[in-house]
Amino acid sequence: MILRSIRNKMLCNRTAEQIIIGGKLCNIIENTWVLRKQLRHTVSKLYQPKEITPRDKLETVKKIDESTSRSSRLMKEYGITKSVGNGYFALLPLATRSINKLTKLIDKELENVGCQKIFLPHTISADLWAKSGRLHGMGPELIRYKDRHNKEMILCPTHEETITSIISSYELSIKELPLKLYQIGSKFRGEMRPKFGLIRANEFIMKDLYTFDKDLDSAMDTYHQICEAYKKIFDRVGVPYQRVEGDTGIMGGSLSHEYHYPAGIGQDLLLWCSECSKGRNIEVEQNGESNQVCESCGGKLEETKGIEVGHTFLLGQKYSKVFKANFLGLKGKPETLEMGCYGIGVTRVMAAATEVLSTETELRWPRSIAPFSICIIPPKTGSKEYNTGVGIMEQMYEQLNLHFQDDIIIDDRDKTTIGKKLVEADRTGYPIIIVIGKKSTLAEPLVEIQIPSALDENLRKMEISPQHAVQFLQSIKSDFS
Amino acid sequence: MILRSIRNKMLCNRTAEQIIIGGKLCNIIENTWVLRKQLRHTVSKLYQPKEITPRDKLETVKKIDESTSRSSRLMKEYGITKSVGNGYFALLPLATRSINKLTKLIDKELENVGCQKIFLPHTISADLWAKSGRLHGMGPELIRYKDRHNKEMILCPTHEETITSIISSYELSIKELPLKLYQIGSKFRGEMRPKFGLIRANEFIMKDLYTFDKDLDSAMDTYHQICEAYKKIFDRVGVPYQRVEGDTGIMGGSLSHEYHYPAGIGQDLLLWCSECSKGRNIEVEQNGESNQVCESCGGKLEETKGIEVGHTFLLGQKYSKVFKANFLGLKGKPETLEMGCYGIGVTRVMAAATEVLSTETELRWPRSIAPFSICIIPPKTGSKEYNTGVGIMEQMYEQLNLHFQDDIIIDDRDKTTIGKKLVEADRTGYPIIIVIGKKSTLAEPLVEIQIPSALDENLRKMEISPQHAVQFLQSIKSDFS
Repeated sequence: MILRSIRNKMLCNRTAEQIIIGGKLCNIIENTWVLRKQLRHTVSKLYQPKEITPRDKLETVKKIDESTSRSSRLMKEYGITKSVGNGYFALLPLATRSINKLTKLIDKELENVGCQKIFLPHTISADLWAKSGRLHGMGPELIRYKDRHNKEMILCPTHEETITSIISSYELSIKELPLKLYQIGSKFRGEMRPKFGLIRANEFIMKDLYTFDKDLDSAMDTYHQICEAYKKIFDRVGVPYQRVEGDTGIMGGSLSHEYHYPAGIGQDLLLWCSECSKGRNIEVEQNGESNQVCESCGGKLEETKGIEVGHTFLLGQKYSKVFKANFLGLKGKPETLEMGCYGIGVTRVMAAATEVLSTETELRWPRSIAPFSICIIPPKTGSKEYNTGVGIMEQMYEQLNLHFQDDIIIDDRDKTTIGKKLVEADRTGYPIIIVIGKKSTLAEPLVEIQIPSALDENLRKMEISPQHAVQFLQSIKSDFS
Repeated sequence: MILRSIRNKMLCNRTAEQIIIGGKLCNIIENTWVLRKQLRHTVSKLYQPKEITPRDKLETVKKIDESTSRSSRLMKEYGITKSVGNGYFALLPLATRSINKLTKLIDKELENVGCQKIFLPHTISADLWAKSGRLHGMGPELIRYKDRHNKEMILCPTHEETITSIISSYELSIKELPLKLYQIGSKFRGEMRPKFGLIRANEFIMKDLYTFDKDLDSAMDTYHQICEAYKKIFDRVGVPYQRVEGDTGIMGGSLSHEYHYPAGIGQDLLLWCSECSKGRNIEVEQNGESNQVCESCGGKLEETKGIEVGHTFLLGQKYSKVFKANFLGLKGKPETLEMGCYGIGVTRVMAAATEVLSTETELRWPRSIAPFSICIIPPKTGSKEYNTGVGIMEQMYEQLNLHFQDDIIIDDRDKTTIGKKLVEADRTGYPIIIVIGKKSTLAEPLVEIQIPSALDENLRKMEISPQHAVQFLQSIKSDFS
């Protein structure tokens, strides 16, 4: 059949790859081990340029630079991110992997509630922002430029104008509602003083979702549905968070909630009830005497500083009225859409989560978004246990790879001691470290599993047979996705 | 165990989702069908705003707007992309799906040759471009702006300066070479006259890869390795392409190749040999009399217009010298890195591929990057065959979904005729259309499979039993990835 022959033709270039992935077939090709090794993630080939502050200089470094937070310093020291200008950061391979995991997690939960992914340009005509009234309300934090035809453009900090303008150009039927469109991409804000790395940067990655409903009741339903999805997202990320009533600020609208990671460096002051967990952002209530009793349940209110990582707004018709974004109602007449908008600071979640979890010298990631879940440290090249150990590693790798596919890194550097590899793996923050050392040559071989952030102390360091190690790690796989 | 209880706690919110994906378990939950339907892709919930030009107006529309190409008109008419300013495009859900497939395909092939994915900011200080000498060489096609501190910044059209500056700030060891770092993201260029939709836009998505080697020999090896990966990428995309010797232009460097899709609207003029396929871009050889015989094999040269979709450059030390991007050689002394850079126009591949493959009224996608591989059209709601047909659809969907996961859309609109659905599915360009019509109620039921772009005419329209349909489609699955 023609299709079959096209298929064969298309496949011929992929034979090597398929054989590698198939695993079992690999011996039939010469040089297979090299090919397999390439597809594996190895520390020797990982671009992770380290610039570690010596411990005795740590206090000095921390005092000098107030714009540095613990996470931003560690991300720089361990080659995770790299500053390329004041408030601008490159994501190096480990950060990129973390952001990709977070992106997939968010995609999944939003798709589950019917959101559709789109892409909007990073820049837009300033005319649209003049139309919504936001152009003149914003100062230099809104980045503007003139294009070659002298037309004023902006680098978007958010996309209400762009999306509402698109929606207004077609007639939506009531059957298409609610409509939920989102993207994950870069946003821009000219900060007076960027600080704390990706926590307050001039360019950052955000998930922004826009919803369109036929009336206020339906918009409220959508709002609650998205808040449920947010709960799943933040629960899955796994860092404790606080949801409080928010400030509607320049977005306009009638109802909003904020999601915060409680942290000492937080820019927002939250007042929340230790009984019923309700709370609000009191950053805006300046000089007001805060009521120290919860209005909902009478419980005691507590103050926490928080880093805002998510925000939901019920916008109403603020944008849809201006842009004439309508739908064709049941009576055949155009009616104004009710909108909502919902943000998650994607790079900020990564930065704030590591800020909350890390120590002064050790990066700690939420398991769900660690760059790799497992780091395997084989015996040192040339050591007595090398051959036996590598054999054990190969077996463990094959089996673990079934569950932790594309999520394992091997520290294959041949001139680095196991001790140094262990320290680096621990400080880079891999949640699971497997050390294959001298005891791998015992009649009943043992390997070491370290899970440094395990709550149960017994799990932080275990000596265990390779087979049980694999079984145990497969059993906790779902913590890592 | 603590980990186990955390796991259970984390999982509790995911029960519904897991049950849906598990498939078999779904009957134990009330309202399951609704939940399952949400996770399926359906035309009734797809944001695909159509603005179709009536056939009798087609010639007029084509004459009026010279900046419109066939693909850009069809992408607009079928709600795939949406213009949001001159040369700026939003990718609506179908375009976003196509770009995601292309992104995965590129990621896979580049990872297979050891490339590591990173993310670089979209903007950078103009100082870096002054340092490389490119700032003053470029006119208004380089978009510039002043930040709030009056510092000149640019919106990057490419990232040699950014990446070389990063590489120069750490000392690379010779063992880390070759180093291959890439990203997939938006680039900016102020076009005098943007045209042909995403083929020549002011903002577009590109894959840009930068390689670093210890010497010229090694850099040549890397160059050939990446060219091999490009061959796999373009073969897998599946559109016929022409690789020709390129112009090194403003990138500098000594060796370059271009990848073109031959097309009437192409901006480049290619001269290539019909015998040995070698060729070059003669756009730069102005007024020169072209030699009509191939220098390599003596074969006859032919002229073709092409749309450039990829470009590879051996850069040498042009950037690494300026930025002092060095590595520590075996003699312990810093030596200058040899660089290469490699681009693929991601949105341009999508636009140019559909430009080449489509007819005047029907969008045609390469199978590898069609937004959905399969569109299923069930019987009309309320028809005699509805109940039987939906039963058959459910079975087929479950089985096909094992192979075409997340790649099937069901046209579930209840007031649209099968005929209209079929026309729309065909024109939107889904490679496989399954129609479940009247013959689904026969004692030996039949469904219709349409593969409009099959080379074998027999495959363009087939009546076949549901079971054989599933088997056949599973057998050709590998054409679609």
